Amino acid sequence: MFKLYYAPGTCALATHIALEEAGAPYEAVLVDFGSQGQRSPEYLALNPKGRVPALVTDSGTLTETPALLCFVAQRFPKAELAPLADPLALAQVQEFNSYLCSTVHVAHAHGRRGARWADDAAAIEAMKRKVPSTMTECFALIEHKFLKGRWVMGDQYTICDPYLFTIASWIEGDGVDTSKLPRIMEHRARMLARPAVQKAVAAEGTQIR
Amino acid sequence: MFKLYYAPGTCALATHIALEEAGAPYEAVLVDFGSQGQRSPEYLALNPKGRVPALVTDSGTLTETPALLCFVAQRFPKAELAPLADPLALAQVQEFNSYLCSTVHVAHAHGRRGARWADDAAAIEAMKRKVPSTMTECFALIEHKFLKGRWVMGDQYTICDPYLFTIASWIEGDGVDTSKLPRIMEHRARMLARPAVQKAVAAEGTQIR
Repeated sequence: MFKLYYAPGTCALATHIALEEAGAPYEAVLVDFGSQGQRSPEYLALNPKGRVPALVTDSGTLTETPALLCFVAQRFPKAELAPLADPLALAQVQEFNSYLCSTVHVAHAHGRRGARWADDAAAIEAMKRKVPSTMTECFALIEHKFLKGRWVMGDQYTICDPYLFTIASWIEGDGVDTSKLPRIMEHRARMLARPAVQKAVAAEGTQIR
Repeated sequence: MFKLYYAPGTCALATHIALEEAGAPYEAVLVDFGSQGQRSPEYLALNPKGRVPALVTDSGTLTETPALLCFVAQRFPKAELAPLADPLALAQVQEFNSYLCSTVHVAHAHGRRGARWADDAAAIEAMKRKVPSTMTECFALIEHKFLKGRWVMGDQYTICDPYLFTIASWIEGDGVDTSKLPRIMEHRARMLARPAVQKAVAAEGTQIR
């Protein structure tokens, strides 16, 4: 039985969905960001980075969404969530997920977590102001270059899909004009029709349309 | 024959080293950042993100360091650069590399590429000022919590090692006090003793001590 530490509205949703898709045995444990639960000594002992998600397994704790997603795919191969045996196809999956974690999620974070990168209040405001343009640029690339078909990788649903869905659920709040992103929005609707997605979203108590 | 597009002083060095370690057939192609080569129409056709590294294979172009490193490990399994068959151990490798790409490299980039996240000159200066403390914090976590032994994962050299080495080669320039990081500095020396590392570093014409 795994334990997934999550907070609503974070990228933990991607792993939450993947665990549901895989039929993995897990319990979801809420980390209360309101009371700074991610900075409590107990949580820091589990994950010294003080972030979510963290997945506690019998053999230790894992963090970082791209790693967790690949772990779920490899640990539950019958769910066919990644092209595990094909180095190039698997690299394409990881390439997409790396872009989400190191560029897109980071662009988003400048709207809420600017204090990570500057101490000055005016600088933090300047970072906030740029979020609509950086997120629009990232999502234009995804819309026009990276999204291959029905699913991110084309016909096959993979661990890229819950991750894109999760980050795409933030873009209205980031000031992105979604009318320019019809393929992303169709992908979001397609995701919301999946029982595993509905279950994870409902369990986190979030509203995604 | 692969083509690795790189620029000196960038994270492309990690993949460059991994290709050498794997004995892969490749050619290294310099992208001239001085003349904004990464923004040329030819390069953007190859990699619309306008960054390095990019690896051109017979079946398409791959980007993003964690994906490239895993690709090299899986495509050249005899080199034993990753615990490919063990989901948990492979996830630990990817967890470390994800942390480097999404947190540590991003912290570093605020010293040189602040214009990615704010348009205001004062904000860009404020970001620069925080780099020594964010990079010190990241490297303290690596020194004390993540570096398991001789190599990042313990006794076994993996694709985490060239990536850590590459980013660790930037820390003096980022204002990090390396006297507090004896294990990282020993790791750097251990890496510099490897022929594959010497060859990649020499080919890029960089100086790392």
